[in-house]
Amino acid sequence: MHELFVTERARQAHPELVAAAQEHGARISPVTEQAAAGLSETVTPQGIIAVCDLLDRPLAGLLAPGAGLVAVLVDVADPGNAGTVIRVADAAGADALILAGDSVDPHNGKCVRASAGSLFHLPIARSRDVGAVLQECRAAGLRVLAAHGHAETELDSLDLTAPTAWLFGNEAHGLPAAILRDADTAVRIPIYGAAESLNLATAAAVCLYTGAMARRRSSGG
Amino acid sequence: MHELFVTERARQAHPELVAAAQEHGARISPVTEQAAAGLSETVTPQGIIAVCDLLDRPLAGLLAPGAGLVAVLVDVADPGNAGTVIRVADAAGADALILAGDSVDPHNGKCVRASAGSLFHLPIARSRDVGAVLQECRAAGLRVLAAHGHAETELDSLDLTAPTAWLFGNEAHGLPAAILRDADTAVRIPIYGAAESLNLATAAAVCLYTGAMARRRSSGG
Repeated sequence: MHELFVTERARQAHPELVAAAQEHGARISPVTEQAAAGLSETVTPQGIIAVCDLLDRPLAGLLAPGAGLVAVLVDVADPGNAGTVIRVADAAGADALILAGDSVDPHNGKCVRASAGSLFHLPIARSRDVGAVLQECRAAGLRVLAAHGHAETELDSLDLTAPTAWLFGNEAHGLPAAILRDADTAVRIPIYGAAESLNLATAAAVCLYTGAMARRRSSGG
Repeated sequence: MHELFVTERARQAHPELVAAAQEHGARISPVTEQAAAGLSETVTPQGIIAVCDLLDRPLAGLLAPGAGLVAVLVDVADPGNAGTVIRVADAAGADALILAGDSVDPHNGKCVRASAGSLFHLPIARSRDVGAVLQECRAAGLRVLAAHGHAETELDSLDLTAPTAWLFGNEAHGLPAAILRDADTAVRIPIYGAAESLNLATAAAVCLYTGAMARRRSSGG
């Protein structure tokens, strides 16, 4: 963190945050409520804005040997959705998350807020080249599963204990056909009721957690 | 459905919807794009607005004998969240959904749109009296599980094959302490990473689907 812009109100409400930033060498700059509102892009600004380095890393080297769960967003357009998936991937214990193809910038303010801090926990890379992302996942020993509403294979029929990269597609169009073909298996979340589909974030939550819980059960923890 | 307001553009794009409405006795009323925009509450209106009866039913009698999965939202404030949970509850095969306490009106336009049609699939009731809701669930033979980020019992340590009503609380404050005490078990979704919590919709997705898949496995289907 390079600099912290903080209103008088926020400084009084969160002295510990200001102290922590100062300890880490950040410059503390007082701002008015009006300036904070302009900087924060939200309707109800909290009065604290931090200036940080960009968080994404190069794709090469992102996946450490032994990675067991990775989430890949392909052409995901909505920053709130991307941030929510980053949060749930973090919660599910994912080792990394990759924004592939024409996906939203994870540094978008709505994405940062929806991630609720998880953007800072999870190693994140961006790559326009989806093929290179799949290659990287396979080189790390991951099986590539593609979430797809019309796939033949159902989520609960799969052995999910092996190391897995999950691909999730665009909110409206899903995954491109070429990517579906290139994945090891296309997987459908079973729909037990009358809904046509799930939205991106809830679908990712179900896939990532079902996998994470299966892996914990199999490892006896 | 009583009446369908439709723009010329929408009538040409979706003649089958207009015909279906007509067959069901709805009055078809042409409107201008401007009028459709005013009626639809969205930025990019689709040009079709239907006038329907309210969908919620009385709490008494909502839960049919043999109900296996019910979702209860307590004090849920955001209509988009409520609609997303209605959609995922429908997908997970829930038998009903109850909006309890100070929850949002399910007929709110944002809730209707987020539910993606599931508002019309799932029996839905509203009740300000959360105690009465719990009583109704128990009378229907359901165990009452309360989703709570700080509960001792972890989701993946539970036998989820029994008929269950899941309680989900307010986005910011969770479930009221009295309701947590009154539930049979408070249940925590395990956090394997560094995230502090999940958001309401993804938490509901994980709980409802983990339960639904466990029940299907145990019934051999």
